[in-house]
Amino acid sequence: MATIKDIAERLGISVSTVSKGLNGASDISESLRQTVLDTAVELGYTTKQMRGRARRKLCIFVENMECETPEQFGYDIILGFRQSAFRRDCDVTVTPVTPAFQSAEKYDTYMLKNGYAGAFLLGLALQDEWISQFRSTSIPTVLLDNYIKKNPAVSYIGTDSFEGIDDAIEHLTGLGHTRIGLINGSRNSMISDQRWQAYADSMTAHGLPFSEDTMPYAYFVPEAAKPHVDKLLSMGITAILCGNDLIASGVIAECRARGVRVPEDISVIGFDDIPISAKLDPPLTTIRQDRIELGKCGFYALNSLIDHVPISKTLLRPQLIVRGSTGPACNPG
Amino acid sequence: MATIKDIAERLGISVSTVSKGLNGASDISESLRQTVLDTAVELGYTTKQMRGRARRKLCIFVENMECETPEQFGYDIILGFRQSAFRRDCDVTVTPVTPAFQSAEKYDTYMLKNGYAGAFLLGLALQDEWISQFRSTSIPTVLLDNYIKKNPAVSYIGTDSFEGIDDAIEHLTGLGHTRIGLINGSRNSMISDQRWQAYADSMTAHGLPFSEDTMPYAYFVPEAAKPHVDKLLSMGITAILCGNDLIASGVIAECRARGVRVPEDISVIGFDDIPISAKLDPPLTTIRQDRIELGKCGFYALNSLIDHVPISKTLLRPQLIVRGSTGPACNPG
Repeated sequence: MATIKDIAERLGISVSTVSKGLNGASDISESLRQTVLDTAVELGYTTKQMRGRARRKLCIFVENMECETPEQFGYDIILGFRQSAFRRDCDVTVTPVTPAFQSAEKYDTYMLKNGYAGAFLLGLALQDEWISQFRSTSIPTVLLDNYIKKNPAVSYIGTDSFEGIDDAIEHLTGLGHTRIGLINGSRNSMISDQRWQAYADSMTAHGLPFSEDTMPYAYFVPEAAKPHVDKLLSMGITAILCGNDLIASGVIAECRARGVRVPEDISVIGFDDIPISAKLDPPLTTIRQDRIELGKCGFYALNSLIDHVPISKTLLRPQLIVRGSTGPACNPG
Repeated sequence: MATIKDIAERLGISVSTVSKGLNGASDISESLRQTVLDTAVELGYTTKQMRGRARRKLCIFVENMECETPEQFGYDIILGFRQSAFRRDCDVTVTPVTPAFQSAEKYDTYMLKNGYAGAFLLGLALQDEWISQFRSTSIPTVLLDNYIKKNPAVSYIGTDSFEGIDDAIEHLTGLGHTRIGLINGSRNSMISDQRWQAYADSMTAHGLPFSEDTMPYAYFVPEAAKPHVDKLLSMGITAILCGNDLIASGVIAECRARGVRVPEDISVIGFDDIPISAKLDPPLTTIRQDRIELGKCGFYALNSLIDHVPISKTLLRPQLIVRGSTGPACNPG
């Protein structure tokens, strides 16, 4: 368990300043107070007083998503959610779910018997049993990258794929690329379908050719790139968008194995901007999702639903981070 | 200027309880404290201490929208925004704007010289000069029912028209209606264009006929109904959706003037659920927008933008309120 001293050391400030931040004293700046609170959550700090107080119980369910370490996609989303929850006296449990888990127990039943006031769900697939149960649940429920029509107890939060993909394609056309492919994430994922549509819309708007062959579905892992790289290269593609940074890292590795240079021969763009992106060789141009803020907005939406405010959808803007993996189009042929 | 006593009288509680609510004492319930705070704002309560403190200045700009009295559409939106702003030590100024005002002064200039940290804009038209300036402003700006692409300093908030219109059409088809018209709001308004599309989408999804003639643009006032009612009736329309409750009130009046009964001969549905809706004869079935919450979410989005969180879009769910103005379809012919 972290102590006040741990927080002070991490931030390079005195123990008494940390104490002021935790206790809401008026003689430290608001921004420092927020930093103290966020760091307390990150380090797992709690007090006896907090543990004794009546607190609301919330659950984060995670499927198909890595979130154990700061390098992984889900980590910051959960951290942002917990940082917001801390300020509102909520306890947060993180529970992995699988299709089998969902078959074994109804969502509402699980929530009620565990006394959860609401949940935030990450990474569920379209065909998951709970997804169909969300159509009629009355328990406040926020979904990352999944949207349920017409149920005021359920809210969707995500990053605007349409703007992100369009930013990326605009960047590439500015570099002279006209043959652009997309190695998408998994099928049965709302976000993959959304990016498929976003790619088709933006390519159409830019007057560029595309087909089912230039936009294959894959998986959100590096190994998924392999079967698609040869095919896209043989079609004369000069730039590849990827469903996430891991796929992009796989594309770069596959290109290197074939003696195809990034970005001289082919440009590569990821999605998410997880920490690995900046460390790849070359560093990855990617469409950034602000995952801490996704988590914080997820908490805001859930807290609103608990207060009977029917938030339907919250979208954050993506941000194109240009690094070394994109460059001028080579002259194909 | 309101006093603590005014708040106590309005809520039917003691002055000391109001005082506890305002001062964040721990021995009153959280929900009562929130009610005290909201009522303080509604009545215009301030203290010397508040007036002396360094506070952030925000502006609400209003065009093409009535907001002076609780009966009018914009009133609750502004109230909700101010109720949230009060909790975060922000001062809110409400400023009417016109096209001439926007021509006379650039948005950024006006904001800077008045020391505003951000703005919430209600009712601007698509062709307004400031709308084009929002593409490049760096000042935190939240727009009700207007969306600006790719500027992370600007956020869109609204109610999901697609779900609202679809709920209404589903309700009508359940009553046997197949010939459904839409008297829309003004042209040059993003929300009118959105509802036009929502109507077209839902009619298509329900396999129902529609054309440009069944979905005329009008204005957001009762008098706008007149030229369209005859035409829609002559086409055999048995139900009319309206761009807002005022248009719907005009449709009901026009029908009465022609001896056409609501809902026996024709069903009418409004949009917004402003207070007049329940008092019409017959009481109006309408698509409710939670305007207090629109205002509160507008503040949340603005506060997030000020903290550099790029919220792009926040949508609330509409709610179909079924009253007496809709009934089974009459057999036309």
